[in-house]
Amino acid sequence: MDPEDFRRLGHELIDWVADYRERLEELPVMSRVRPGEIRAMMPSRPPEHGDGLAGIVEDLDQIVLPGITHWNHPGWFAYFPSNTDLSSVLGDLVSSGLGPQGMNWITSPACTEVEDVVMDWLRQAVGLSQAFTGVIHDSASSATFCALLCARERTTDFSQNGGGLQAEDAPLVVYASDQAHSSVQKGALLAGFGAEHLRLVETDDKYALRPDALEEAIAADLAAGRRPCALVASIGTTATTALDPLRRLTEIAERHALWLHVDAALAGTAMVCPELRWMWDGIERADSLVFNPHKWMGAGFDLSAYYVRDPDHLVRVMSTDPSYLRTAQDGLVRNLRDWGIPLGRRFRALKLWFVLRDQGVEGVRERVRRDIANARWLAEQVDAAAGWQRLAPAPLQTVCLRHVPSGAVTAAAEDGERRRGDASESGGASERGDAEAASLTEEGLAAHNLAIAERVNAGGRFYLTSSDVKGKRALRVSVGAEATERRHVEALWAALQEAAR
Amino acid sequence: MDPEDFRRLGHELIDWVADYRERLEELPVMSRVRPGEIRAMMPSRPPEHGDGLAGIVEDLDQIVLPGITHWNHPGWFAYFPSNTDLSSVLGDLVSSGLGPQGMNWITSPACTEVEDVVMDWLRQAVGLSQAFTGVIHDSASSATFCALLCARERTTDFSQNGGGLQAEDAPLVVYASDQAHSSVQKGALLAGFGAEHLRLVETDDKYALRPDALEEAIAADLAAGRRPCALVASIGTTATTALDPLRRLTEIAERHALWLHVDAALAGTAMVCPELRWMWDGIERADSLVFNPHKWMGAGFDLSAYYVRDPDHLVRVMSTDPSYLRTAQDGLVRNLRDWGIPLGRRFRALKLWFVLRDQGVEGVRERVRRDIANARWLAEQVDAAAGWQRLAPAPLQTVCLRHVPSGAVTAAAEDGERRRGDASESGGASERGDAEAASLTEEGLAAHNLAIAERVNAGGRFYLTSSDVKGKRALRVSVGAEATERRHVEALWAALQEAAR
Repeated sequence: MDPEDFRRLGHELIDWVADYRERLEELPVMSRVRPGEIRAMMPSRPPEHGDGLAGIVEDLDQIVLPGITHWNHPGWFAYFPSNTDLSSVLGDLVSSGLGPQGMNWITSPACTEVEDVVMDWLRQAVGLSQAFTGVIHDSASSATFCALLCARERTTDFSQNGGGLQAEDAPLVVYASDQAHSSVQKGALLAGFGAEHLRLVETDDKYALRPDALEEAIAADLAAGRRPCALVASIGTTATTALDPLRRLTEIAERHALWLHVDAALAGTAMVCPELRWMWDGIERADSLVFNPHKWMGAGFDLSAYYVRDPDHLVRVMSTDPSYLRTAQDGLVRNLRDWGIPLGRRFRALKLWFVLRDQGVEGVRERVRRDIANARWLAEQVDAAAGWQRLAPAPLQTVCLRHVPSGAVTAAAEDGERRRGDASESGGASERGDAEAASLTEEGLAAHNLAIAERVNAGGRFYLTSSDVKGKRALRVSVGAEATERRHVEALWAALQEAAR
Repeated sequence: MDPEDFRRLGHELIDWVADYRERLEELPVMSRVRPGEIRAMMPSRPPEHGDGLAGIVEDLDQIVLPGITHWNHPGWFAYFPSNTDLSSVLGDLVSSGLGPQGMNWITSPACTEVEDVVMDWLRQAVGLSQAFTGVIHDSASSATFCALLCARERTTDFSQNGGGLQAEDAPLVVYASDQAHSSVQKGALLAGFGAEHLRLVETDDKYALRPDALEEAIAADLAAGRRPCALVASIGTTATTALDPLRRLTEIAERHALWLHVDAALAGTAMVCPELRWMWDGIERADSLVFNPHKWMGAGFDLSAYYVRDPDHLVRVMSTDPSYLRTAQDGLVRNLRDWGIPLGRRFRALKLWFVLRDQGVEGVRERVRRDIANARWLAEQVDAAAGWQRLAPAPLQTVCLRHVPSGAVTAAAEDGERRRGDASESGGASERGDAEAASLTEEGLAAHNLAIAERVNAGGRFYLTSSDVKGKRALRVSVGAEATERRHVEALWAALQEAAR
């Protein structure tokens, strides 16, 4: 495509994107297409001759848009937020337009050095010391996998350079809580540890890893001749945003020479607020940590921030040095091909640069505080409402709740207990729900609540998802789309109550 | 950023990108900044308050642009091409603007189904049968790593669900040629096989894997109680674009139940030309293959096409099933989170859709044929020129050459032999270079040729890199930037000759 055609269609598509964002609130959050419907609208054979993108805007409207579930919609309460601020869209446009590939410093020094700078800005913004060096990965899954590979190699004194993990005598063990993200399990399995050597340790009544249970698991492994290798601490679990007791875990990790990796995928962004940094107290003693500016900060997917204390170790695990990749600057510069799994690298730092310049750290802080206040407001409504239960503390922006219709059997008394024990909360309330508990099983309650979610989601104004919270099915209201204001949370709460009637 | 500000700055940046591409030829291909120079131009602390991107265009001009090495420049002859056609830039703009995250089908059905369709188009375009199913990965490194993990799990009957690789008794072995890309080594090491269990098998005088040497290596491993697991065949190696004898390798792989992965990262795109498909004859019997539309096809980095014969196996290796990711459509649809390492997924299929629609398969074919003809022209000049040697066959678009000044000692007679043995070539010529060989060592020749490359690169009109070809230092002229016409190749050849004088 020549620059003139690009210019013409580019202007049209900039307006198309702007128009889309302006009318986002009118669109149903969750796509309503049926499986196969999009595919059926496209030719089954590739175009033999090009059409210069004639009719592409119509196709975007008719084929693509109906198949989009709108993550930037103000009614987005599903999973976790994944914001792509419009400033990020522009940063990414420049990245694609320049089209560099930053595997080596010399293959575009700006790719490496802008990344150096913005990752250092981000480090300062979330209050980490200079002991940490950052690099952009695509996702927390990849970063956590990378951390487990680094742990494996540290514990085995670089078995990869010898017989590999398969030549090790005593098996290595990885620890995390039973609430840790599925990527920990995936990473441990892919790294070759095996499911039998992954300990998903019991959590307490706030869904936080129990240090005593961890100590017991380690002792049992040591007694059986196995080698404790890595511990993944979760700061903000996916199901309930639970906070593992990081400082106590650092002590255990140090005592047993465990690689300590911290998964703060969602919560990391909140650390721009000094008043929230108690949540990851002890972070300075982690070996590695990951959080996702592509979640709550507005830098569009994919942009995960991976920080390590020992970059030399990371590079030693990840580097190869073939003749065709050597450059005159080796040794003087960072070649980021050696800081992760893929060799090639897109210029992703630009979108984070654009977001931070556009909003400033203060802008991010304001949104985080707004979203947490909105979640707290919702938590208070739930606590005060007859027939509703909150199933977990809500230290961040996610509220886990369910409706207990008059007459349902639940373990609700325990829940009341848990809420009262939560220092960050305004105090328990909904024993009314408990009192009404009488006949519905957990299964029945789950079905009832999933039906509520389905009704709310079908309305098109909101999208929320659910999770299993130790055997109870919780509706997760995850606040944090940039467009979400208090009025949207209020409207969601009204819709939930309506759907429960 | 609100849509109105986005619109204003978006139009400005579309023009900025168009202007950049229009004047690309005037810019020095390789960035001329010194290490640290870009970093020094940026503030060391993050902006506390946002500036709404005021002055961003000036900063792009002054900070970013001088630090870009221009992969889309017509004088790009380095590494392999990595084109970002302007149609791809537009597809990616739509992807960022919509901002969906396609981990599950329901989180944006269009992400999954457009990917289904364009990966099927691509399959047809390169002549693969319906036995293959495709998925987009970020890079060939990741895809090859994924293939080795799948191989490991097939051979061990899913050790990941038990004790992991570390619980296996007999060690597993991976095979590839000594010319295989560094990502094969990296993948094998990260997958836990260990360097001792990676066999980089000897290649023949065309740098292709020798089946007899492979058979010997396998026999030795079997005799020693080790288990052959995977074979990576290279179709178009990085150093010289050598072609492993795929059909013979499929027979060996089948006999020993090896997972056969084909790395056709660069060459895959060329398979749009039916007359070139002899290069991967036997491909239908591979278990997996990868090629990079982000190299020669014009879909901007990162877009690797990974094809497998057994998607169920891939999903079984890669899937996790936590409660918070379950959806009502599970079982009816592809959830692409289970088709690779990262959980989250950007809507990358759009950029490939845009490229294929804009150019058609015929458009891609024309460029591939043009580039191969340009490389052949250069090869002929080298063969005919006094004092120049070609160090490898050039079946695709990369020519490996060197200058041998009057009086240098080389193993040039052998080279003449090799060239004459190459059926795809126009016939050997430059014995004159051999005759002149008399006093320079290989080391001296390498320094002489690196100096030539440095002089050419410093001129700013071209960028080429080098590789080690079995102890000889070759200058690699890798044709394939979309903007590169015959006149640029002619000008490069003149510049090389000038630099050698």
